[in-house]
Amino acid sequence: MKKQYLLLPGPTPVPSQVLRGLAKPMINHRGPEFKKLLTEVSEGLKEVFSTENDVLIFPSAGTGGMEAAVVNFISPGEKVLVVSIGNFGDRFAEICRRFGAIVEKLDFPWGTAADPAVLEDRIKKDTDQEIKAVFVTHNETSTGVTNDLPQLRAALGDHPALFIVDSVSGLGAMPLETDAWKLDVVVAGSQKSFMLPPGLSFVSVSERAWERAEKCTNPRYYWDLRAAREFAQKGQTPYTPALPQLTGLVESLKMIKEEGKENVIARHRMLRDMVRSGVRALGLSLLAEDDVASTAVTAVLAPEGIAADTIRSTMREKFNVVVAGGQSKLKNKIFRIGHLGYVQELDILAALAALEMSLALCGYQVNIGQGVRAAQEVVMKELA
Amino acid sequence: MKKQYLLLPGPTPVPSQVLRGLAKPMINHRGPEFKKLLTEVSEGLKEVFSTENDVLIFPSAGTGGMEAAVVNFISPGEKVLVVSIGNFGDRFAEICRRFGAIVEKLDFPWGTAADPAVLEDRIKKDTDQEIKAVFVTHNETSTGVTNDLPQLRAALGDHPALFIVDSVSGLGAMPLETDAWKLDVVVAGSQKSFMLPPGLSFVSVSERAWERAEKCTNPRYYWDLRAAREFAQKGQTPYTPALPQLTGLVESLKMIKEEGKENVIARHRMLRDMVRSGVRALGLSLLAEDDVASTAVTAVLAPEGIAADTIRSTMREKFNVVVAGGQSKLKNKIFRIGHLGYVQELDILAALAALEMSLALCGYQVNIGQGVRAAQEVVMKELA
Repeated sequence: MKKQYLLLPGPTPVPSQVLRGLAKPMINHRGPEFKKLLTEVSEGLKEVFSTENDVLIFPSAGTGGMEAAVVNFISPGEKVLVVSIGNFGDRFAEICRRFGAIVEKLDFPWGTAADPAVLEDRIKKDTDQEIKAVFVTHNETSTGVTNDLPQLRAALGDHPALFIVDSVSGLGAMPLETDAWKLDVVVAGSQKSFMLPPGLSFVSVSERAWERAEKCTNPRYYWDLRAAREFAQKGQTPYTPALPQLTGLVESLKMIKEEGKENVIARHRMLRDMVRSGVRALGLSLLAEDDVASTAVTAVLAPEGIAADTIRSTMREKFNVVVAGGQSKLKNKIFRIGHLGYVQELDILAALAALEMSLALCGYQVNIGQGVRAAQEVVMKELA
Repeated sequence: MKKQYLLLPGPTPVPSQVLRGLAKPMINHRGPEFKKLLTEVSEGLKEVFSTENDVLIFPSAGTGGMEAAVVNFISPGEKVLVVSIGNFGDRFAEICRRFGAIVEKLDFPWGTAADPAVLEDRIKKDTDQEIKAVFVTHNETSTGVTNDLPQLRAALGDHPALFIVDSVSGLGAMPLETDAWKLDVVVAGSQKSFMLPPGLSFVSVSERAWERAEKCTNPRYYWDLRAAREFAQKGQTPYTPALPQLTGLVESLKMIKEEGKENVIARHRMLRDMVRSGVRALGLSLLAEDDVASTAVTAVLAPEGIAADTIRSTMREKFNVVVAGGQSKLKNKIFRIGHLGYVQELDILAALAALEMSLALCGYQVNIGQGVRAAQEVVMKELA
């Protein structure tokens, strides 16, 4: 079996020490070993979230954390503003709609970031304070664009709406300061920069948000954050937790601590710059502008006349390099190179090499080696 | 570190080949490898469920599967009947209530099974067919009692109510025939007889139930079975799946197939008989009568004057044997010996030996060796 290069915006490659961490014998989730485990990972998560808020853990996909961030804070009939710059912003809006919120969307073109001035204008018009929450995607996985959270938060000023953030593919791969940036609710997931397999979502909740949760009338049981907090206080979860991902998380939190949060973020920034330089050197276009380009994933436009999915399948079949396709309206128009989690410089160079050869095989005129070289120059500059 | 004997009604011990199955490299959940994986485990699950119905998989605890079994089929304001014989029956009722159902409970004393005649009477009185669904716990984990599903199903006769079953701790450890018994919805979980860690729930859905799902008005996104089916048809899931548990499931399904479904059930029956004989030989009382005694877990009454949790902590601290405590009204009155999943005769003998010694250390008059011997006799009879 050939070694696979997995360059997705999640799931990301998992280091062997984390894989070993998954494969631990089961323990009693109502016993003292579990209490110790839950306390340890909760403390570690708070550090990554840069928060003193509670961070609760659900056995679920990231989408489950998003649902928790809706049903605990928004009552049916309440108005919410959803800032959307892509597929996952649309998902937040859809979840809000399903649970009875009156959703007003602030849409920005896919490939661009949200304009804080537009949000500020809209908020200023809400003199009756009808808007109960603003939902924002930190890093839009479908387009490779990162929103400027501090500026978007500032656009709210003193408006009492909760500021609820999907940072499933953002947290850890780029700066996020839950407390300093006054983020009421932040959702993250295990299968991204945490270098873990999918199966856990994380939700941080501010004091202000807890007050709203008490009054919220949306039905909830599995996603009930109040129950999660109540059980967490005695070192338990309301129902059986996903033990492998939790014991794996112990290992990945150790690795993040050892590398250092800032260094992890700097590494992601460099990988992003490598990909962008490499792809540009091959004459391809990038979906996102430099100033909003994600450090987690890069969306590349397929060259005129070649389907993005043909490039992807060539990369997979000939070189065992797996990148993601376009979603929704970008299907077959772009491919997305994930560069988050357990990914290093040489992985990117290898993937770029495969991309060059695949493009050539697809009939695109390419100067073999040019993309790799451009990316190497980014590394050399970093080393200088 | 001492080897631990985990005898809980979930999570259960996980075989090393399944643990290794967890620790596989990540794959693209939108790619061909995943399609193959999902198809393989879905087919295997259908065999275990004895069904041609769809079996959908959620990245969640078993409780998530229970929530899916409510929000997809019951609309707010609809009347449901919840048959409860313990804590998990009560949980089903609570989930129904949270999501707006008008819940009528048929309660039976904890430690007994539901009486099909009582259900039949109630159903016969429902001449207007107001009851939209009957919720039943197959195996009540909190008391170690198994309900007679075929008889309870028969009690419905031609009444159009859906028959919705929580078999989280039942399926695999005792007979369950989804199609032959006409079970509309069956919920199971990974951390029980499947010998997997927690993190997956399984939900089977009959044609009749699908029709109801189409009309159901309860809000749902994560638990939307329609989306799960739609994605399953193209070999995907609506959002990122819990890959480790799925690759582990491949291994555990292989083991179940190799041992044979009937042999797995026979093993569980023998383990149950060993525990019951052993415990009785020590002069202790069992919560459940023989005819309704679960093959997954046995609830033992603590002897007069000794707290159940003292016995449990002695077993854990002195012998590293972990059994479960009583829940809710049975807290500290009983302890529960789990004997499902990856458990064999000698595990039970070892646990009984630890129980005997622990009882002696707690000041209970016990004839050391007598419980083990009684359990050995069960084995010898089986071998004869």
